[in-house]
Amino acid sequence: MAGYTELKREAYEANVALPKHGLINLTFGNASAIDRAKVVFAIKPSGVDYDALKPDDMVVVDLDGRVVEGRLNPSSDTPTHRRLFLAFPEIGGVVHTHSSHATAFAQAGIPIPIFGTTHADYFNGEVPVTRKMTPEEIASAYEWETGAVIVERLQGLDPADFPGVLVNRHAPFAWGPSVAKAVETAVAMECIAHMALMSLQLNPDLAPIEKPLLMKHFKRKHGPGAYYGQKAAG
Amino acid sequence: MAGYTELKREAYEANVALPKHGLINLTFGNASAIDRAKVVFAIKPSGVDYDALKPDDMVVVDLDGRVVEGRLNPSSDTPTHRRLFLAFPEIGGVVHTHSSHATAFAQAGIPIPIFGTTHADYFNGEVPVTRKMTPEEIASAYEWETGAVIVERLQGLDPADFPGVLVNRHAPFAWGPSVAKAVETAVAMECIAHMALMSLQLNPDLAPIEKPLLMKHFKRKHGPGAYYGQKAAG
Amino acid sequence: MAGYTELKREAYEANVALPKHGLINLTFGNASAIDRAKVVFAIKPSGVDYDALKPDDMVVVDLDGRVVEGRLNPSSDTPTHRRLFLAFPEIGGVVHTHSSHATAFAQAGIPIPIFGTTHADYFNGEVPVTRKMTPEEIASAYEWETGAVIVERLQGLDPADFPGVLVNRHAPFAWGPSVAKAVETAVAMECIAHMALMSLQLNPDLAPIEKPLLMKHFKRKHGPGAYYGQKAAG
Amino acid sequence: MAGYTELKREAYEANVALPKHGLINLTFGNASAIDRAKVVFAIKPSGVDYDALKPDDMVVVDLDGRVVEGRLNPSSDTPTHRRLFLAFPEIGGVVHTHSSHATAFAQAGIPIPIFGTTHADYFNGEVPVTRKMTPEEIASAYEWETGAVIVERLQGLDPADFPGVLVNRHAPFAWGPSVAKAVETAVAMECIAHMALMSLQLNPDLAPIEKPLLMKHFKRKHGPGAYYGQKAAG
Repeated sequence: MAGYTELKREAYEANVALPKHGLINLTFGNASAIDRAKVVFAIKPSGVDYDALKPDDMVVVDLDGRVVEGRLNPSSDTPTHRRLFLAFPEIGGVVHTHSSHATAFAQAGIPIPIFGTTHADYFNGEVPVTRKMTPEEIASAYEWETGAVIVERLQGLDPADFPGVLVNRHAPFAWGPSVAKAVETAVAMECIAHMALMSLQLNPDLAPIEKPLLMKHFKRKHGPGAYYGQKAAG
Repeated sequence: MAGYTELKREAYEANVALPKHGLINLTFGNASAIDRAKVVFAIKPSGVDYDALKPDDMVVVDLDGRVVEGRLNPSSDTPTHRRLFLAFPEIGGVVHTHSSHATAFAQAGIPIPIFGTTHADYFNGEVPVTRKMTPEEIASAYEWETGAVIVERLQGLDPADFPGVLVNRHAPFAWGPSVAKAVETAVAMECIAHMALMSLQLNPDLAPIEKPLLMKHFKRKHGPGAYYGQKAAG
Repeated sequence: MAGYTELKREAYEANVALPKHGLINLTFGNASAIDRAKVVFAIKPSGVDYDALKPDDMVVVDLDGRVVEGRLNPSSDTPTHRRLFLAFPEIGGVVHTHSSHATAFAQAGIPIPIFGTTHADYFNGEVPVTRKMTPEEIASAYEWETGAVIVERLQGLDPADFPGVLVNRHAPFAWGPSVAKAVETAVAMECIAHMALMSLQLNPDLAPIEKPLLMKHFKRKHGPGAYYGQKAAG
Repeated sequence: MAGYTELKREAYEANVALPKHGLINLTFGNASAIDRAKVVFAIKPSGVDYDALKPDDMVVVDLDGRVVEGRLNPSSDTPTHRRLFLAFPEIGGVVHTHSSHATAFAQAGIPIPIFGTTHADYFNGEVPVTRKMTPEEIASAYEWETGAVIVERLQGLDPADFPGVLVNRHAPFAWGPSVAKAVETAVAMECIAHMALMSLQLNPDLAPIEKPLLMKHFKRKHGPGAYYGQKAAG
């Protein structure tokens, strides 16, 4: 089982990055990293303080939801992470927070409108919001069904174009090729939610960013034509 | 009197946690912990800077309001704490802050509406607000009467379902099975007040969270069916 | 001139407390302490970074505005401080900041309304705002005239009941029996401005706090009947 | 090439000052310093974390856009900086951030109105906003054209009177005689955007600051009659 050391460290680093970025209210929030070869993911234990967290506290779970390694209960949101890993085979990590500004949009059931280039650097459009869950979904396997409404909302969209979502009445989820990138997207969601709220105060009828500028910025960072960062540096 | 060392440490830890969580403006705020067997509680001294506070500065008071141990004046809000300890036999600690966002609701005399699951994890409904105090109540035993309007507002409600309240024109109070849990609730009240304020900006007519989702989240953390955290971990 | 060491230290401590309390934007802000026996006050030098400030950098000025001790230019706002020390013989210190929320009210020329007990613990009513200065006042001895409009606004009010003011289009000034107390009032002004702004968002027509509660809280901390803090402790 | 050590250090100091002042969201933001004699400027490398940045990571670029020294890709915004250095021969540094409040105005395409003296200490009027870029400008040399719309907006204005601008749908740029001064202006833009937003909440129809007071404050700090700071100290 020594094979999970690196995976647990990756999940641990992402989890402790969340309070460092100011994304955690109370103990809400969790991050997970998947090893696609071994078909397991490492996730935060439930209700443990971030201060006390150690890499070895991470719980390793398989895609059927069975604990493979770990002494603690996995996060109660584990089935949501599992549902996303099953539906989006290209993602390597999932992050859930209750960050204040993004959660304010989620609670109101309102997508984060795309007003500027900061947003367009991360999302290829507004940040989507799920439909409300039915009483039946809530009464049954609630956390699994939370994942299911996210997957339903992403239907027809590329999870690389829309690397996060607001769960209605609840809070944001983010994902990405790695859990570290999912953390960055969670930071971006909080930041663009804050700025959108203020832009809306300045102009409640503000139109979304114009398409050519949106595409320019999104593609500056994503896909074959990307030229931001050091990847192409000589 | 060595028997109060642990109680004073518990109250001390809660008091110094308040500025750490950003709940203290100026020197406003105090926390107390009760020992139900010895029928005394330990509380912060009045108007002392948090930086300078030591465990031994805590003042031990009995339920008739007599100082049992301590060199300093107890908090001027001591009679409010005493009133709550008398009325709610199941609570182990009380916390009072002037945290900014919760106080903004209290000043306006408006309950914190329950818009999302973050709120539902702590309160079984909106955060109640007391009626305004009468000139007579203010002129007589003001701090004791502050406790009395809180108790009046909680009539018919379970203090475990509603572990905090906004005192009209004043500020929030929180309680819980331990003073540490009351601190956590005070953090939650500030956080949900902030998010509610922003959700209201997005939609001034936003309806409260749907009942099944409220019940699901509240019960995930409270009562016999609770499954959040490590309590049931093997 | 060794007699100014203590006065300069007092002014220094107050000046460096300002950024510690988050009251300073850029390098705006200054604090001064007066020695009524020697009829001089010590004030921050102009445009010096708070990080680099040393007690010995404080400039000692007499009430005619002459530098008595110091190598640096005194704050350009020195004549405003001087005007206040002349008009209010009972005060021992003056603080000026551009703290964000209080300045937002000052810029708008709107008094900070008194909505709750946090405010009533410091001010015996709303935080007053000066009239706008005339082009003549601005063109002549601007900083002295800034002090003059403050004094004009305070006419008929006790500077102990109203220990601060908003200068229209400009920013807050605070004062008190000591410069340390003036710093505390400057902190309170920023805090109550923030909370008032949010209470106004919740209810734009919110009425001020009821008179009996205002008087109760103001007198709990001020005057012969005060019982907050450790002064009366045995 | 040892001649660039000082220039790179100057650019480095400005870049690491940005997160210290809370101006950086994610990795967005960059600062550059020009050596007018050598006709080169030093700028932050693209997409590198501020934590990991070292003075020697700065990339030295000439005014034709050729990298003169450096192992890393220069910031993708380098052509914008270059355009500004070419158009404004009196400036020594350029700063770009996505600071939250200023960006909220930029996204909304709304100038930052000049409501008080804090603003007037830095800008001789409202903070201008560029026109939106055309699809053709976006599709061609996007970052160069970003500089071009800034230059277009500044036409007829003195870059010393208006040391910064909001790029529509995007974010703020600032400049100054040195890059250190440009950083200070970027801090000021964020601060005055925050305060303007709040003043607008208090009074959506608030008129700009009166001309005599604006001129007084701007000239207190700028031009031959300036008397703020230590320049004239004996």
